[in-house]
Amino acid sequence: MQTHAPADPAHLTAASVELLDRVRSTTPLVHCITNSVVTNFTANALLALGAAPAMVDIREESGLFAGIAGGLLVNLGTPTPEQRAASREAVAAANAAGTPWVLDPVAIGALPIRTALARDLVASRPTAIRGNASEVLALAGAGAGGRGVDAADSTDAAAGAASRLAAEFGSVVAVSGPIDLITGGGRSARVANGDGLLTRVTGGGCALGAVTAAFLAAARGTEHDAFTATTAATLVYTVSAELAAVDETGARVGPGTFALRFLDALEAVDGDGVGRRARVAVASGDAGFSGETDASEPSAVRA
Amino acid sequence: MQTHAPADPAHLTAASVELLDRVRSTTPLVHCITNSVVTNFTANALLALGAAPAMVDIREESGLFAGIAGGLLVNLGTPTPEQRAASREAVAAANAAGTPWVLDPVAIGALPIRTALARDLVASRPTAIRGNASEVLALAGAGAGGRGVDAADSTDAAAGAASRLAAEFGSVVAVSGPIDLITGGGRSARVANGDGLLTRVTGGGCALGAVTAAFLAAARGTEHDAFTATTAATLVYTVSAELAAVDETGARVGPGTFALRFLDALEAVDGDGVGRRARVAVASGDAGFSGETDASEPSAVRA
Amino acid sequence: MQTHAPADPAHLTAASVELLDRVRSTTPLVHCITNSVVTNFTANALLALGAAPAMVDIREESGLFAGIAGGLLVNLGTPTPEQRAASREAVAAANAAGTPWVLDPVAIGALPIRTALARDLVASRPTAIRGNASEVLALAGAGAGGRGVDAADSTDAAAGAASRLAAEFGSVVAVSGPIDLITGGGRSARVANGDGLLTRVTGGGCALGAVTAAFLAAARGTEHDAFTATTAATLVYTVSAELAAVDETGARVGPGTFALRFLDALEAVDGDGVGRRARVAVASGDAGFSGETDASEPSAVRA
Repeated sequence: MQTHAPADPAHLTAASVELLDRVRSTTPLVHCITNSVVTNFTANALLALGAAPAMVDIREESGLFAGIAGGLLVNLGTPTPEQRAASREAVAAANAAGTPWVLDPVAIGALPIRTALARDLVASRPTAIRGNASEVLALAGAGAGGRGVDAADSTDAAAGAASRLAAEFGSVVAVSGPIDLITGGGRSARVANGDGLLTRVTGGGCALGAVTAAFLAAARGTEHDAFTATTAATLVYTVSAELAAVDETGARVGPGTFALRFLDALEAVDGDGVGRRARVAVASGDAGFSGETDASEPSAVRA
Repeated sequence: MQTHAPADPAHLTAASVELLDRVRSTTPLVHCITNSVVTNFTANALLALGAAPAMVDIREESGLFAGIAGGLLVNLGTPTPEQRAASREAVAAANAAGTPWVLDPVAIGALPIRTALARDLVASRPTAIRGNASEVLALAGAGAGGRGVDAADSTDAAAGAASRLAAEFGSVVAVSGPIDLITGGGRSARVANGDGLLTRVTGGGCALGAVTAAFLAAARGTEHDAFTATTAATLVYTVSAELAAVDETGARVGPGTFALRFLDALEAVDGDGVGRRARVAVASGDAGFSGETDASEPSAVRA
Repeated sequence: MQTHAPADPAHLTAASVELLDRVRSTTPLVHCITNSVVTNFTANALLALGAAPAMVDIREESGLFAGIAGGLLVNLGTPTPEQRAASREAVAAANAAGTPWVLDPVAIGALPIRTALARDLVASRPTAIRGNASEVLALAGAGAGGRGVDAADSTDAAAGAASRLAAEFGSVVAVSGPIDLITGGGRSARVANGDGLLTRVTGGGCALGAVTAAFLAAARGTEHDAFTATTAATLVYTVSAELAAVDETGARVGPGTFALRFLDALEAVDGDGVGRRARVAVASGDAGFSGETDASEPSAVRA
């Protein structure tokens, strides 16, 4: 991957569509070590999108597999002792093999086992970190964490913590919220797409971590860097949520219906839909954001 | 919580609606230690209803979290060694912190590990116990248990066992079946709502245990006691199942469609729907049941 | 079970319908030790079909339960140390009690822990083995395995390996693919039903292993042997997929909608639907296949 990303929203959106097409044409193998609540939804989201999920979360297999896979997700939602050992093994192997990997530090802060594990793993320099604002603040040592999996802090409040994590570990940091913030290498993007129904279905955030790993895998060997791939994953995912949230009659759907329609949307979403709906803003260094997104007036709300 | 519950069906139904509204306005954090088959459905049921699920089932985190949470569910469906240790830790912490908790003794009787664990945990005096008739009989030492998760015994056959458990451990005991029976503190309720499709979707019973924990959490600091909260959870849950079982054209739906519609119904159900559909009967002490429910002629069947 | 199976496609289809009816009339208890990604979907598939699932995957319970159950599935998708021990216990008890059991060697080949376990378990002579072509080749020692859960090899390429496994361990071997191949006792069947959407939903293959265990359980005490029961499970399952893949308007559905409709179809499928749609061919010994299925021109594709 190169280190330069599109400098304006239109190019970033176009790059996102290219990477979506590339996920579908290359079917990247995504190694997931994730929590027991969302394994099924995560695997189905990857399959719907066109990627190939594989949950390999035991010792003496995870390291081997992380070297074969196109991308790796390590999600700390229900970290059993076996998963903790498998995560360490997988991360070491991913780094050795050059496999891009995503750390999702679910509910860290108040809970000691996963907090200690997240601190250890982040030192291995994840390609991307995805979490809500409270989790990102806690990982940066700047917050007490949320209330379980809920964010108690706003995305903007985590912007400084995200930048510090990005600088310290060389990671792209994606903060999920009503407006998603992606930061890395001195650049930032805001994505104002999405729908609040993503917070009414378990795995709405966790599956994005896996989709991010799929986009990072698809970006390997292309001109697109990790910042672009992470932003692309967020954009495609949140646009799909918008498509799913309203049915053919224009009515908002319930959470059960949404979960089903979201999987259908991940399969059906295309460049045209992404292009028309994208609400992306981009900033470089200390410059302000350029783009049609106004953080104070989101068109759609999601966390 | 006070120890007095509404003495007639109309007041119990009104209290149920109050508690439903309170779940939605307070978003109680529900700590779930549950089986690997139903984690996703359970979390989605709580989210649809308006509560906040968190699965924390490892040692050195479960105790801490049970003290933070509004309510706790301990479901013994797939009790790994790690979950068994986490359950003991969580129950001790819940009792120390005053967190109400629900024990769901899934498939105890023939299976020795979970049966021994259930006997241990019940001695810690759960706020509520939820199970089918065979599980309640087995927990009371009065039956051999069912065939896996199926009840081999009728709800009425478990009435005596439920009363003895309630008296011995100070718990409210909810026996799920075609007509649900809730017993505690010398009072009993029968709820004749529901639909047999709840038995055709895995987690149909298990998720009710989690919803009961949500209602117990919502009742903290109100005039409503654990008997009322447990009955309210059962009533709201089974009315939602009725709403889900028949589609817009009046046709009964298949089990896949039902699972989706049930989540939608948990989000949409309101006081009007509960009030119109409630089929509740109440009894105090040795008096007979008063209310429109006739146990010998259920209007709807569910187990 | 007898060792003779229907020698022509029409009789095999008729036997499949008989066994489907028998699953529904006897509600066989199916003991599942399966991976964490598909537990929910597997249980719901069994419930929709009319069987009774029970996930019992811990030590000191699995052996006991395998002796009670009507059939057992051992799926190696996420084999934790606890599940590995429980699997060995369950298989020994199943063999002692005469409980038919199915081995699903998920993703063996490259991954050492599950490959070693599969080699051990197959020596205990499973009643049926279900896998994709790469898994069957790897189990027979004739291939390097697939890419995670994906088959890298065609069903036909695994025909020889399937025959050798069947001969060596006395098992029926079912190879899932665009055309399913079932081999055992010198007979073979090809089933050309199904839909590619089964590969876009996680558990599309794994749940077939559980359904096979249900049909084996239903066949106990009847004239139908394990070859017939395994073929029947494949036929009923793949016909249900066809019914689910196209909606009322004739349009193909997305993967989220498919998963829901597939559960509805497993409940609704009947002898008429199976009879009209069945595309089955049968061969005995060294004779060629007779029946309307042409392996080179599948009417429907599935893996």
